[in-house]
Amino acid sequence: MPTFSGKLAEASKRNNSLLCVGLDPDPALMPEMEVAAFNRAIVEATQDLVCAYKPNLAFYEALGMKGFEALRETIDCIPSHIPIVGDCKRGDIGNTARAYAGAMFEQWGFDAVTVSPYLGWDSIEPYCRYEDKGVLVLCRTSNKGGADFQDLSFQGPDGVSLPLYEWVATKVQEWDTRGNLGLVVGATQPEELRRARELCPDMPILVPGIGTQAGDLAAAVRCGTDRDGMKAMISSSRKVLYASRGSDFADAAREACVSLRDQMQEALASRSSA
Amino acid sequence: MPTFSGKLAEASKRNNSLLCVGLDPDPALMPEMEVAAFNRAIVEATQDLVCAYKPNLAFYEALGMKGFEALRETIDCIPSHIPIVGDCKRGDIGNTARAYAGAMFEQWGFDAVTVSPYLGWDSIEPYCRYEDKGVLVLCRTSNKGGADFQDLSFQGPDGVSLPLYEWVATKVQEWDTRGNLGLVVGATQPEELRRARELCPDMPILVPGIGTQAGDLAAAVRCGTDRDGMKAMISSSRKVLYASRGSDFADAAREACVSLRDQMQEALASRSSA
Repeated sequence: MPTFSGKLAEASKRNNSLLCVGLDPDPALMPEMEVAAFNRAIVEATQDLVCAYKPNLAFYEALGMKGFEALRETIDCIPSHIPIVGDCKRGDIGNTARAYAGAMFEQWGFDAVTVSPYLGWDSIEPYCRYEDKGVLVLCRTSNKGGADFQDLSFQGPDGVSLPLYEWVATKVQEWDTRGNLGLVVGATQPEELRRARELCPDMPILVPGIGTQAGDLAAAVRCGTDRDGMKAMISSSRKVLYASRGSDFADAAREACVSLRDQMQEALASRSSA
Repeated sequence: MPTFSGKLAEASKRNNSLLCVGLDPDPALMPEMEVAAFNRAIVEATQDLVCAYKPNLAFYEALGMKGFEALRETIDCIPSHIPIVGDCKRGDIGNTARAYAGAMFEQWGFDAVTVSPYLGWDSIEPYCRYEDKGVLVLCRTSNKGGADFQDLSFQGPDGVSLPLYEWVATKVQEWDTRGNLGLVVGATQPEELRRARELCPDMPILVPGIGTQAGDLAAAVRCGTDRDGMKAMISSSRKVLYASRGSDFADAAREACVSLRDQMQEALASRSSA
C-alpha cells in the first residue's frame, strides 16, 4: 500500500525540495481575485519546487460557503504526485474523531492531517486507521503561547523530569504501530525540534514558522530532517503567497520558493559535509 | 452589551433547564431523512426543554458540502433566545485563530465556541475579542484518552504539584479579564469537575458525557453548577437524537429531554436541601 511517508519522499526527491507551501488565502493580503484562481496560480507557479502543499482550513472556513468551494477547487488543482496536508489541528473524542477523519480523508481527500494531542490516544487513533494517510500530531508549536503548557515540566515514569512536548513525542513514537504518525514542531524552537527528531527518528515532521514567524531556516533543516536529510516539511505560507500584491504575485511566489528551496538545500549540504 | 453568560442564564431560567442538546447528526443512526429536516424536528420538539444547543462541526464536515448547508439551516432554525455552542475544539496560532473566530462567530453566527488550550493564550485570545461571545476551553475531557496528558502532574509555581487540567483551569481563570471565558469538563470525571468549578467559580461550564458515555448525571449537576445552581450546560447528544430510529424519533427525543431535564432539576433540589 502506498503510504504518506512514501509519497512525501517521492515528491521531495523529484523536486529536490523540503519546502511545503501553506495555502492560506487571506483576502486582506491577496490581490483582488477569487481565492481558487489565486491558489491555482500559486500552485502552477510553484509545483516543481515543493515537497507538499498545506491548506489551513481556517482560512477557507472564514469565507463561508464560497470558501469551502475554493478549498475543493484548490485540492483538485494540485498534481496528484504532490502530497496535500490538511492543516486542521482537530482533536475530539472517539466517535467525533471518526467523523473528522471521514471529513478530512474521504470528503476532502487530504493525504495527511494535523491533529492536537490534548485528548490523548483515542482521539488520534481513528485517523491512523487510514493506513495510507499521514497523521501529524502537534508537539511544540511555533507561537509564543506554545510555551504556556507545552513547556511545563513534569516527572516522567523513570523519575526524570521532562516537558510536556517531549512526553507527547515519546507517546506518539510509542503509538506508531502502523507507521503513519508524524509530528508538528515549530521552526522557532530549533532545540525542541532537535529533541523531537531524536525521539522520533523516522517520522515525517512538519516544521512551520520559518517565514513571517522568523524561525531560523538553516536550523530547521539541520534539526528537523532525518539521518538521510529527508522527512521534514519546512513550511512557509505568507512569505510565499504575499511576496507581491501586484499582478506579478505568482512570479514573486515562485521566486520566493526558489530562494527558500535553495537555502534549504544549502543548509542540507553544509550539514552533510559538517 | 449582551453576553453569552447572560443569554445562557436567560434560556436556562426560561426553560428551567441545565440540558444542552448536542446536534450531532449521524446518518448511520438517524432515520432515513435529510439532516436539516431531522435537526429541525429535534429542535421543534425540544426547544422548551433546553438551555442551549450544541452542533459538533465534525458531523457536518463528514457530509461534505451538503453537510455545511445542513449546518446553516440548523443554526437558522434555532429560536434566537436559545444560545448555540459551536463545538469545534479549534486551536491554532494567532492569525489562524483570528480566521477561525471569524468563521465561527461571523460566518456561522454561533454564540459560543469550544477551543483547545494546547497552543496557549495567544491561540485563545482572538476568540475573546468578541466580547458578547463565549469561549469554552477544554479542561478535562470525558474520553478515556483524556487521562493521557490532562492528568499528568506538574510542579505549580508555589511548589505544589497539580495535574495539567487544573493548571489549564487556573490559567483560564487568570486570562478571563473580559468575563467571556468558560470551560469544558466531562461528566465522567465528577471529582475533576468539582475541582474545575472551585477554580472557576463564576464561569459557564459545558459538561458532556452524561448519556452514551455514562457519566453520573446527579454528580454532574452537583459538581458542575455554580453557587446558584446555574451556569452548567449538561450535554447529551446520542441519547436524545437516537432515542428512537422510527418515525416517532422527535417524540422520543422530547421524552428523553423531559426525563433528563427532570433528573437534573431533582439533583439540583436535593443539592440545595442538603
